[in-house]
Amino acid sequence: MARIVQKFGGTSVGDLERIRNVAQKVKSCVEAGNQVAVVVSAMAGTTNQLVEWAKQIGPMHDAREYDTIVSTGEQVTVGLLSIALQNIGVDARSWLGWQIPFKTDDVHSAARIEEINPDDIIGRLNRGQVAVVAGFQGIAPDGRISTLGRGGSDTSAVALAAAINADRCDIYTDVDGVYTTDPRVMPKARKLDSITFEEMLEMASAGAKVLQTRSVAMAMRHGVNLQVLSSFTEASGTLVQNEEKQMEKQKVSGIAYSAEEAKVTVVGLPDKPGIAAKIFGALAEIYINVDMIVQSASVDSEKTDITFSVAREELSNAVKNIRNLKDDLAFERLVYDDNIAKISVIGTAMRTQTGVAKRMFEVLSDKQINMQVISTSEIKISVLIQADYTELAVRSLHDAFGLDTIG
Amino acid sequence: MARIVQKFGGTSVGDLERIRNVAQKVKSCVEAGNQVAVVVSAMAGTTNQLVEWAKQIGPMHDAREYDTIVSTGEQVTVGLLSIALQNIGVDARSWLGWQIPFKTDDVHSAARIEEINPDDIIGRLNRGQVAVVAGFQGIAPDGRISTLGRGGSDTSAVALAAAINADRCDIYTDVDGVYTTDPRVMPKARKLDSITFEEMLEMASAGAKVLQTRSVAMAMRHGVNLQVLSSFTEASGTLVQNEEKQMEKQKVSGIAYSAEEAKVTVVGLPDKPGIAAKIFGALAEIYINVDMIVQSASVDSEKTDITFSVAREELSNAVKNIRNLKDDLAFERLVYDDNIAKISVIGTAMRTQTGVAKRMFEVLSDKQINMQVISTSEIKISVLIQADYTELAVRSLHDAFGLDTIG
Repeated sequence: MARIVQKFGGTSVGDLERIRNVAQKVKSCVEAGNQVAVVVSAMAGTTNQLVEWAKQIGPMHDAREYDTIVSTGEQVTVGLLSIALQNIGVDARSWLGWQIPFKTDDVHSAARIEEINPDDIIGRLNRGQVAVVAGFQGIAPDGRISTLGRGGSDTSAVALAAAINADRCDIYTDVDGVYTTDPRVMPKARKLDSITFEEMLEMASAGAKVLQTRSVAMAMRHGVNLQVLSSFTEASGTLVQNEEKQMEKQKVSGIAYSAEEAKVTVVGLPDKPGIAAKIFGALAEIYINVDMIVQSASVDSEKTDITFSVAREELSNAVKNIRNLKDDLAFERLVYDDNIAKISVIGTAMRTQTGVAKRMFEVLSDKQINMQVISTSEIKISVLIQADYTELAVRSLHDAFGLDTIG
Repeated sequence: MARIVQKFGGTSVGDLERIRNVAQKVKSCVEAGNQVAVVVSAMAGTTNQLVEWAKQIGPMHDAREYDTIVSTGEQVTVGLLSIALQNIGVDARSWLGWQIPFKTDDVHSAARIEEINPDDIIGRLNRGQVAVVAGFQGIAPDGRISTLGRGGSDTSAVALAAAINADRCDIYTDVDGVYTTDPRVMPKARKLDSITFEEMLEMASAGAKVLQTRSVAMAMRHGVNLQVLSSFTEASGTLVQNEEKQMEKQKVSGIAYSAEEAKVTVVGLPDKPGIAAKIFGALAEIYINVDMIVQSASVDSEKTDITFSVAREELSNAVKNIRNLKDDLAFERLVYDDNIAKISVIGTAMRTQTGVAKRMFEVLSDKQINMQVISTSEIKISVLIQADYTELAVRSLHDAFGLDTIG
């Protein structure tokens, strides 16, 4: 017997028929002798509708009211799934964020889970009841509903798995696992049987949308075994686990990309301490997530340039806020480009095996693709290129690193 | 300065534009120097959709999950209205049933409010904040969301008004007050400036859908001054108040009707004690609300008949359950008719003035309308007739009692 958390996303619970399908999957897992807690998202489309209303009703935004509104999506799904389970003979009850409770901090609409009290749920799991838990939501110190931000249901599932000491956390989604790259771009992309937490973390932050970055980081921290699998097939998925458990030791595990990036260069900054802190402090204040940052060495002057990338939709806000600092920062001008893609090559084995960067740069150069910014971590190399070349770059790198052949 | 509860129904908050309109009405009330708590329903149509889903997902019905699902409608509205208020400069926050809390009993989906703790809300009203309260919902002793049954938002508003000692409870709806009868049936129907609690209670239970019966009964018990008025006009509404305050002393205040009734006669029952208790006990068990009951005197045999009326939609359930008792009750046969209307003449002054019943029967007889069942209370006379004659009966009685001329 194992204790398992199953998480189903918005597409998997998109209508009543699909919710019944999820109920069958949960029932199979229960009948296999497991204790099961299910975490669900809102029905696909619901959250967008609610967010739209909250935005349209007035420009001034109270995040506490926003959370009250958007958290209803998951509230509906847990009720419906519980009824669906009961109707096929499975003992089940729904749990809302405030009922468990999932205690969060007070950053409404982007809250972090601080504490979960799982006693009641564990007691009921031990008696054979399925817990149907609303993802994405919690309760803030002020006693009001908080939400974790988009994609937060993955995080809810992992946090619950950690709190109840689950043997595994199965994330059901509309793809059947983690691929070497996006199969829509590269038909030869291959599903990975397993991947390390760190690789998955880099894949997620590099644009692969299978799992939310926060949930992977939390799973790594708490040692929660993740599995990504499809709610629409019976195929086995991809296990995300510690490096020690990895059998497969390929140089490169995957190619990730994000085609919706923008690049900003602040030209002619005085080369003195504190400048970068001011720029990125100003962006952090308005919750803009800066990804790659490169500062050019100032060899022949007292001036330097700083280049960074942000999501394309954040560009105009970022530019506006930096312009406001012009007098303070004394830079010469701002240059920006919103037609940028980030291509990343990821693999734990890079730590010990060399030559990956060299090979990557050769491949891109062979295809006449200009690299505008390069950034590396222990297990990842990312470059910014013109977005028009995204597919060409992904396919060429996938071929060059032999990702279509089983490691 | 007064403390006022305003209640807006589903049509009044049917879309974002209407919610903004409600916000303006609330603002006017605040700017007139009042403390304001607003109780809102779900956006029109939302609750029906949620109920539909809950029914479709499976035939077995867990009322706790049902409540979890349907209570989201009001949760969305309070969030949206709070944002709308903030955007026009009114300090406001939303309150869900479990946050106040509205403590109810454990009869999920038809719960009764047992206790309200208004301290936090009163404190904030005193500081000038508007409380935007979700109607229809509370929290049961098991810590789960309960709902009060359809139309429960009126009851929420009155209960809140009683708890915070409000000077008045204004029920905004899509009609501008209580009429002598349904203006769709009788164009000469006249809006009443005031009506007594008891009359309103009879009007509501006799089919006038302006206010939910429970809310009127609660207002009467706690002495809450009710006002019914339109959210779409500026016209003054109808005050519902104690009889002592009533100036107008007309014999008859209104004609109410319900055209969706059914009648069941259990024929040939043994005339002995306990039979009626068995019949109506069986119906109460499945929550069927029986309205009029008539037992014919058994003069020439040991057999008797019992006739009662139920809402048309309950007929098949009622018949099925009484058939199941055939052996036990030893009745001869069941006769039923689902094309029945109930017509009621209502007026507090009937207590002291005679002749209303006689006049009512004369009018119906003149129009060749056959009365199938008659039932009277101190301030009401109700008859069941064939539903086809509903409009004719209402108009004839309205004319006969001179309701179109101001009393």
